[in-house]
Amino acid sequence: MALTETSLIERYFRAAGAQRSDVTLGIGDDAAILSVPPGSALVATTDTLVAGVHFPHGSPAASIGHRALAVNLSDLAAMGARPAWALLALTLPEAQEAWLQEFSAGLGALAQEYRVALVGGDTTRGPLCVTVQLLGLVPADAALKRGGARAGDALFVSGTPGDAAAGLALEQRRLEASRAAAEYLRERFLLPSPRVALGQRLREYASACIDVSDGLLGDAGKLAQASGVAVEVLFEALPVSEALRATLGDEGARRLALSGGDDYELCFTVPTANITQLHAQLPPAQWGYARIGSVRAGDGAHVLRDGTVMEFSHSGYQHFS
Amino acid sequence: MALTETSLIERYFRAAGAQRSDVTLGIGDDAAILSVPPGSALVATTDTLVAGVHFPHGSPAASIGHRALAVNLSDLAAMGARPAWALLALTLPEAQEAWLQEFSAGLGALAQEYRVALVGGDTTRGPLCVTVQLLGLVPADAALKRGGARAGDALFVSGTPGDAAAGLALEQRRLEASRAAAEYLRERFLLPSPRVALGQRLREYASACIDVSDGLLGDAGKLAQASGVAVEVLFEALPVSEALRATLGDEGARRLALSGGDDYELCFTVPTANITQLHAQLPPAQWGYARIGSVRAGDGAHVLRDGTVMEFSHSGYQHFS
Repeated sequence: MALTETSLIERYFRAAGAQRSDVTLGIGDDAAILSVPPGSALVATTDTLVAGVHFPHGSPAASIGHRALAVNLSDLAAMGARPAWALLALTLPEAQEAWLQEFSAGLGALAQEYRVALVGGDTTRGPLCVTVQLLGLVPADAALKRGGARAGDALFVSGTPGDAAAGLALEQRRLEASRAAAEYLRERFLLPSPRVALGQRLREYASACIDVSDGLLGDAGKLAQASGVAVEVLFEALPVSEALRATLGDEGARRLALSGGDDYELCFTVPTANITQLHAQLPPAQWGYARIGSVRAGDGAHVLRDGTVMEFSHSGYQHFS
Repeated sequence: MALTETSLIERYFRAAGAQRSDVTLGIGDDAAILSVPPGSALVATTDTLVAGVHFPHGSPAASIGHRALAVNLSDLAAMGARPAWALLALTLPEAQEAWLQEFSAGLGALAQEYRVALVGGDTTRGPLCVTVQLLGLVPADAALKRGGARAGDALFVSGTPGDAAAGLALEQRRLEASRAAAEYLRERFLLPSPRVALGQRLREYASACIDVSDGLLGDAGKLAQASGVAVEVLFEALPVSEALRATLGDEGARRLALSGGDDYELCFTVPTANITQLHAQLPPAQWGYARIGSVRAGDGAHVLRDGTVMEFSHSGYQHFS
């Protein structure tokens, strides 16, 4: 079926996201016009998903749409920002209506959940590749950054890292699990929940924050480098899901929690003076985060087990290596 | 050579663009933090270039970098906006240092010319595909739009459309030309100059504006549709370059001026009451634009020759057809 670029965007994406009064002009002109309220800084990020690299060929279109936005929402969450507007650059081998319908439904549902308006886009013919640019807002000078951790701070992570990497391995038939565990882990890969609300609340308590998308240990190392400190992760403190533990055993689950990618969780540091209030205002069981270690003088990200440093050959996913 | 994603971005792109004081936080965190001045609206656009679709495989890397930014600059020009910040999503089969060096030099030179800071990026492995998201600023409620043309307005175009399409055909050896003409036309495809300054000045005079990137006649038709009017283009008034005329003859040059893509020129309408001042303040010979027709009641984009309507089978490039 012949679909022009204009009709593709109009038909599948104009109404897919949230409606926002700060969109002066949305899809349909050469560019979108957006209104940034006084006192707010603009926060901007972009991430690409490529077929065969970030998701297996043949992945459900709804999952691809969901994940293309989720990876960007996670970046804004790590800054403590409130998402607002997205632009979509979609490269497709051919315009299949059923695929586009599912893709835009997956992206649109997540956009509506976080009140993100889709304000622009570009569709081109080529190998399947999805780039989303996400814009958000944060009170001026209040954004969370990677570089604020100080020796003595406590180290936390949200969720149960490693689940998404196991879910991907299940999708690729590189791993086997019970039906219930497989269903849970697959969903963690296919439809991850970025920690947007947690990130915004952490502005009050955290000294530094980073999105865990390339593996917890590698991303904690980036936080350490940006802050000029070392972080120590306690192996026994790593939170892992029951499904991951049932599939890989306790040891394997914790190792994957350190190295697996695609989790879209937050790793953050909190000055000890803030911990009591953090726990009171954002109860860990309700908000889904756990202390996993500490910040000290030095450099790098280290894993301790019974007081001994563990060695890892792989500390995070590198796109070019 | 092994290059991590972090070092790719740091090494090739952090310093490539302009330095701007309104970049609170640039490349190196989960997202960029940008400061939008009070009274300004934010203007956002994104465009993708795919190897084999928007440029021939093996195109010079500097041209790919230049064009990936130029196509977005042209969108902002059409809104009358001032470009400010760009994010780059670069998908590459492999990280070749020489290619990256040339690519970032091409993109960076154009970014510096228009004072665009590169504030974020994502590099991924995959088929060559470049997406740039460009953010700009415009005084609140002052942006040019497609929908403002009214019956009686005059129709203009900048530059000499058709050159880029001929340049591409030369690159692909589908066309032959004299050495001098070929050099000029190739440059018009490889290193187009977006009309950023003209777009900003047109805010004072124009009623509507659109970027001519998919072909003048097709894009004029989009302007007409958005405005609820018809536009009439006078075939004899179409400005064509000497190089294009020497290569295709007068008739062929004007036909390509109507249908050829990738020119990154502006098509705009001006109320007749503004024309005298437009010509006085922005002399056409100096600013490079020409009147090509008029707006009337009705719909569609029509070409007149000696008072007769010409028929065209192809009125603009459709990405999916």
